[in-house]
Amino acid sequence: MYNIKLTISYDGTGYKGWQVQDNGRTVQGEIEKAVEKVFGKHHRVHGASRTDSGVHAKAQAANFKTSLLIPEKKIPLALNSVLPEDISIMRASYIDDDFHARFAARSKRYMYCIFNSRQRDPFEEKYSCRVPYSLDVPLMRREAKVITGRHDFKAFQARDKKERSSVRKISNLSIVKKQPFLIINIEADGFLYNMVRNIVGTLVDIGRGYLSGGSMKRILKSMDRTKAGPTASAKGLFLVEVKY
Amino acid sequence: MYNIKLTISYDGTGYKGWQVQDNGRTVQGEIEKAVEKVFGKHHRVHGASRTDSGVHAKAQAANFKTSLLIPEKKIPLALNSVLPEDISIMRASYIDDDFHARFAARSKRYMYCIFNSRQRDPFEEKYSCRVPYSLDVPLMRREAKVITGRHDFKAFQARDKKERSSVRKISNLSIVKKQPFLIINIEADGFLYNMVRNIVGTLVDIGRGYLSGGSMKRILKSMDRTKAGPTASAKGLFLVEVKY
Repeated sequence: MYNIKLTISYDGTGYKGWQVQDNGRTVQGEIEKAVEKVFGKHHRVHGASRTDSGVHAKAQAANFKTSLLIPEKKIPLALNSVLPEDISIMRASYIDDDFHARFAARSKRYMYCIFNSRQRDPFEEKYSCRVPYSLDVPLMRREAKVITGRHDFKAFQARDKKERSSVRKISNLSIVKKQPFLIINIEADGFLYNMVRNIVGTLVDIGRGYLSGGSMKRILKSMDRTKAGPTASAKGLFLVEVKY
Repeated sequence: MYNIKLTISYDGTGYKGWQVQDNGRTVQGEIEKAVEKVFGKHHRVHGASRTDSGVHAKAQAANFKTSLLIPEKKIPLALNSVLPEDISIMRASYIDDDFHARFAARSKRYMYCIFNSRQRDPFEEKYSCRVPYSLDVPLMRREAKVITGRHDFKAFQARDKKERSSVRKISNLSIVKKQPFLIINIEADGFLYNMVRNIVGTLVDIGRGYLSGGSMKRILKSMDRTKAGPTASAKGLFLVEVKY
């Protein structure tokens, strides 16, 4: 068997997220269909991150095993020719037998795009969340520092999802102004369900003055989801990189 | 009666073009519905340009007459609150009684966006047309010069549409490299049906070497649509400005 690693870009707008499910189109489902057409057999395609409904990816990683040998360079072309336009295989490579896209991932990087404008814009809002309030970015940056490092992020975990442990390590969190956008980059060894979107929603509430300085520390300590801000919209979120 | 001028931005992806028709959602239809909700009565909204199915606008102009007086500044907010997300009123202003968005327009400017890449990209391709061939841009620029000025553009007019005259004046045509994009800007006193997209399709055929240098002159003189290149895809086309 050959183990193939894929790097995938997709516009999540029209999908019920990555993971195959009974109702609705999923990115994994579309890729598995394409793999079946090209490799002649159904193979399970393992994604590094099970991105949620509406979330995008610039570079999702995935792998699958097959007995059919196709030259590396031809794999993206072959898969793209049968994939819908909003999913694209950027690269493919043969990789060690024991590589598993999800279990081998050391860290993931997400980007959240805030369109900070009172004026609507159909083009800018497609891949961002519009925030019409003026934001105190230096305060947001100070508050963001509180959650970098290793912490229990229970307060930022979706209430209906439970993982064995809600401890994660955020290795990097930066907030970059790119007028009229505000870009929030978060890298961690792993993320809880809705964690990035809940952190972003909380930072925005702080930036607009709805929550005061010091809130991040208080919320983190509380381990109580109801204390944190709202879940920011999926359309502004991109999985940008998976590191191995 | 008050005459109101609107400046409108829209993502044309989900619309059967500007003009109201029996089947399918149109931009004019959505705006007239919003005007009816806000101004309490149905009013015909006249657009400067009847953009085709799938074509976008950064600044379409339109006008309508109403007897209800609403402060200028509140009109965009009120209309946007009932419009779908992919249509946005950027500005509204009261204007002379005899102003008609279509008949008063002196010139229109369109932009066509070519994504010049062998690699697909779900995000870049949403609002551009991907051309995987390398393009001879200096040659495209030389050939584009041939059609600037006043000419009979019959060769670039959709065959099933007939206007009284197919003479138009292109006042400006520029081709700008913005890697990985190639942007074609065209300004004219008016455009025939599909004219921009047929010009772009021809320029691309020249740029990729499928048509030779000198083709533009020959095609223009032929007045024969079958001699020109294909109609470039609607999704790369934007109405950028209407001048009065």
